[in-house]
Amino acid sequence: MDYEFLIKDLNLNKSQKIIGTDKGLAKIGDGIVNVAYSIAKSIYLTNNNPNNNIIRTGKKVGKNILEAALKNANMKNFAKSRANAHDLADTVESLVAYVWLNNKMTLKEIIDVLADNLTGNLYIRNEETKNATVAFTNLLNFMKKFLPEK
Amino acid sequence: MDYEFLIKDLNLNKSQKIIGTDKGLAKIGDGIVNVAYSIAKSIYLTNNNPNNNIIRTGKKVGKNILEAALKNANMKNFAKSRANAHDLADTVESLVAYVWLNNKMTLKEIIDVLADNLTGNLYIRNEETKNATVAFTNLLNFMKKFLPEK
Repeated sequence: MDYEFLIKDLNLNKSQKIIGTDKGLAKIGDGIVNVAYSIAKSIYLTNNNPNNNIIRTGKKVGKNILEAALKNANMKNFAKSRANAHDLADTVESLVAYVWLNNKMTLKEIIDVLADNLTGNLYIRNEETKNATVAFTNLLNFMKKFLPEK
Repeated sequence: MDYEFLIKDLNLNKSQKIIGTDKGLAKIGDGIVNVAYSIAKSIYLTNNNPNNNIIRTGKKVGKNILEAALKNANMKNFAKSRANAHDLADTVESLVAYVWLNNKMTLKEIIDVLADNLTGNLYIRNEETKNATVAFTNLLNFMKKFLPEK
């Protein structure tokens, strides 16, 4: 990919808050997060299917999952002050889009981190929420090295 | 990417209808379509911005756009019989996911076909709908060679 020109302005004056609160990045990241989780979940369910069936599925990742992941990764300083749940989820989406557009992680790498960190029975709704939160927390922790230090 | 194992079953017995009506593929494709259009629109708006500003944006592509594109590309035979607008849009999403998972087009290639085919003033809602439909029609026409002949 070579869409780095779409974040040239953000790279001129890098800051956690500027990247983490960019509304356009969040919109782009929304799609990336959903594709990545859909494929990661399909991989996980296919690899763990007792009947060797191929499972293709997709899911819009809930705001609650992304919000919790940002908190668990201690990355609330990327969000705006007095951020609500929706703002915190948007921040995760912005960060994922930034790292991807900045060519620090490919979509495949994002998918693979999520897939490698999924566990448990994702057919049980509460368990999926809990375990998807862990996977996104690990993704955020992994991405820290590609993000500004302040 | 190497997620072709997720469509191994569909490749064993290739048919337009089996691929075009797969619900799991449609869910995966939904995300791909939205990411691709978001980036394509951001590229187009950035390249055509009179003030040289960078525009990052995102948009959930409306069902009406995808439905019209499938009809314009004469690809309704990929959908189920008596398909409604929602079914036809799902078929476009399935086809995009199939071509991508089958490694026939990268996400970059999908984005570039869309971006190259966008025209006009996308800030006017009706004009965006019309012109996005043209872009997706061209994408579908381009993808035909990667899809089964019946």
